Amino acid sequence: MDAIAYVREICAAARDSAAHLALTQGRQRDEALISCAAALRAQSDHIQAANRKDLLAAADANISKAMMERLTITDKSIQAMAGAIEQIARQVDPVGVTIAAYDRPNGLRIEKRRTPIGVVCVIYESRPNVTADAAALCLKSGNACVLRGGKEAINSNLAISAAMHEGLAAAGLPAGAITVIDSTDRAVVPALCKAQGLIDLIVPRGGESLIRAVVEDALVPVIKHYMGNCHVYLHADADEKRSVDIVLNAKCQRPGVCNAMETLLVDSAAAQRLLPVVAKKLADAGVELRGCPRSRQLVPDMKPATEDDWRTEYLDLILAVRVVDGLDEAIAHINKYGSGHTDAIVTRDIEAARRFAAAVDSASIMVNASTRFSDGGEYGLGAEVGISTDKLHARGPMGAEDLTTYKWIVTGQGHVRG
Amino acid sequence: MDAIAYVREICAAARDSAAHLALTQGRQRDEALISCAAALRAQSDHIQAANRKDLLAAADANISKAMMERLTITDKSIQAMAGAIEQIARQVDPVGVTIAAYDRPNGLRIEKRRTPIGVVCVIYESRPNVTADAAALCLKSGNACVLRGGKEAINSNLAISAAMHEGLAAAGLPAGAITVIDSTDRAVVPALCKAQGLIDLIVPRGGESLIRAVVEDALVPVIKHYMGNCHVYLHADADEKRSVDIVLNAKCQRPGVCNAMETLLVDSAAAQRLLPVVAKKLADAGVELRGCPRSRQLVPDMKPATEDDWRTEYLDLILAVRVVDGLDEAIAHINKYGSGHTDAIVTRDIEAARRFAAAVDSASIMVNASTRFSDGGEYGLGAEVGISTDKLHARGPMGAEDLTTYKWIVTGQGHVRG
Repeated sequence: MDAIAYVREICAAARDSAAHLALTQGRQRDEALISCAAALRAQSDHIQAANRKDLLAAADANISKAMMERLTITDKSIQAMAGAIEQIARQVDPVGVTIAAYDRPNGLRIEKRRTPIGVVCVIYESRPNVTADAAALCLKSGNACVLRGGKEAINSNLAISAAMHEGLAAAGLPAGAITVIDSTDRAVVPALCKAQGLIDLIVPRGGESLIRAVVEDALVPVIKHYMGNCHVYLHADADEKRSVDIVLNAKCQRPGVCNAMETLLVDSAAAQRLLPVVAKKLADAGVELRGCPRSRQLVPDMKPATEDDWRTEYLDLILAVRVVDGLDEAIAHINKYGSGHTDAIVTRDIEAARRFAAAVDSASIMVNASTRFSDGGEYGLGAEVGISTDKLHARGPMGAEDLTTYKWIVTGQGHVRG
Repeated sequence: MDAIAYVREICAAARDSAAHLALTQGRQRDEALISCAAALRAQSDHIQAANRKDLLAAADANISKAMMERLTITDKSIQAMAGAIEQIARQVDPVGVTIAAYDRPNGLRIEKRRTPIGVVCVIYESRPNVTADAAALCLKSGNACVLRGGKEAINSNLAISAAMHEGLAAAGLPAGAITVIDSTDRAVVPALCKAQGLIDLIVPRGGESLIRAVVEDALVPVIKHYMGNCHVYLHADADEKRSVDIVLNAKCQRPGVCNAMETLLVDSAAAQRLLPVVAKKLADAGVELRGCPRSRQLVPDMKPATEDDWRTEYLDLILAVRVVDGLDEAIAHINKYGSGHTDAIVTRDIEAARRFAAAVDSASIMVNASTRFSDGGEYGLGAEVGISTDKLHARGPMGAEDLTTYKWIVTGQGHVRG
């Protein structure tokens, strides 16, 4: 079957399941989630056997060590997936909530009520836990999902969805609620992007080139983030210990992820006090520093930074450093070069924190906290289906509530318009 | 200057103004709105003179009578525009509202706070009042707007925006907050669609072909509705008077608009009781009826309906009529043929109303009320920037709150991730 016909067939089945899910009660979906978590644990050996197939093929294909790590499923990762699903099951049902309700002067009752979106498609790369997280968040919010993972994880993803189908069946829900695409045909992604009327939302997760390709092709609405060029700004009034702790954590705790810091901004009023201390700690941690001329006067070991450095997401132990004259120059730098993902200020000054939070045009603003907290789990969402640096519908980490829409329910007593 | 360079220049100015607006207080934006309304009234003669230029050109171009009507500005329409702006000014400020706030177990404070989107572009056809409505809703919500109206209304639109610039100046706000595109170059629309990073949202309003062209071209997120194929379903338990009143109003009060009824569904259990009465009233009002075989048995005068009739938005005094066997068949018909805009049920049965509202997958569900109420003004939004049949971000009539996004503000005391 060609990719377009295949996509139409699976999406039509997903649509039917979405219509079924839209009429379920939250309790039934939560029971399904609990059963899914139990099935994942029960099928741990089977899932790990499928994962070994993927790992062997990946080893043959000489895939990078980082990708092998992301691909590997262990007992611990099964427990983590199941635990996240159980946490999602315990959350309040986002569906059916009344967002607003009021009477109009003519007596019409207007209600805005939260409903599932319908069919949500997630396109992602090699991490198999995305399969479990995305499926669970979609199920929680009453949506059917169509999941297209990377080809190197296909056996793992199918084994995870097979386990979750047992959970669906145990709660009397249709298998079409969770579909992992069982095809590595590259034509499937463009076909998904053009499936208007069948898919309501696409969330692409992965490298910038994957996401750009999806946006170029998409007729279906897309929510995405291209990259995380995150900043930490040490304000004139920043505490030294907090500055060191936050900068080290934001850069070094996990440098390969989107919420790691990529540029450090230091206020000129604090640079002499803070920059040499912070730079020493970063250098000790193996971070390569690339600085502006003023930061290199204070820390001569730094390499010079170029204009490109301000725009680069290194995803590595490299950091751009710039001395700025005051809060507004820091804000201007972030809004010019940043990616709207996550930006932090370290300060004791309440007015500086307020202005930074208001003026920096990013999904997450951290005040005296590491950029690494920008995450669905850390925000209490249980997991995340993706992170949005778009401004439409959802911004930042997307949880179950972000997979809902609403409808207007208007009740009259024979009302007609005059 | 070519269209792409022109669009980049005006959008860059709009972005700067958006950054300014994002830091304003609601009071200042409301003062600007009140001044805009006053300036529209004060410049009524000037605006109507500009409008006469457009009307003369339109008459030369042999434009349809309906379009001439939509294009015409009178004293009354100036008052209506100014009144809508004042109503918007009196609404609660949607910006700065805390949507959710909570402490995490580690003491991190998480807040989701409503903010403006940034730069909103509206692409529309010949109705000049859209200029005032869209500009006012964008200003209320702290957004800069870029407005591209139909070429036949360009003098009217520029005169309206000139008046509103006086209002902005009186409140100390930049003129770049409201930009009417002063070019009829057809290459401008594709350039707007591709202005990623400069425009945050495009709302196209108009015929289906305009909207499809925008969606095909767009790299910027789009919110839209293609059409309104709206239904009224007379349930087995429908009251006769309400049925007649609602059907007549939904079809005849203003047949050329998107919230007019296009298909009438009558339950087989009520068809004999209701359909002849309703059909007689519709025929008396000059409505051409096109019925399924069972409805033609009850009302032999009807023309036969074809499959195409179930999908057609007539925007005229024509109505498709179908007898259905029960609530679920009505729901299935609407979800198959409808456009997700507005669908109504007439019933005395609370369970039927509940199930219809839950299962019909449309932006607005009317219970014992005419579809014609599906409108930003009727919902109390003051005006609407558009109507969405999409499910992302906004659904149904879009008011000022729908032109906001949010940011996460996370406050710690030196928190780092373990």
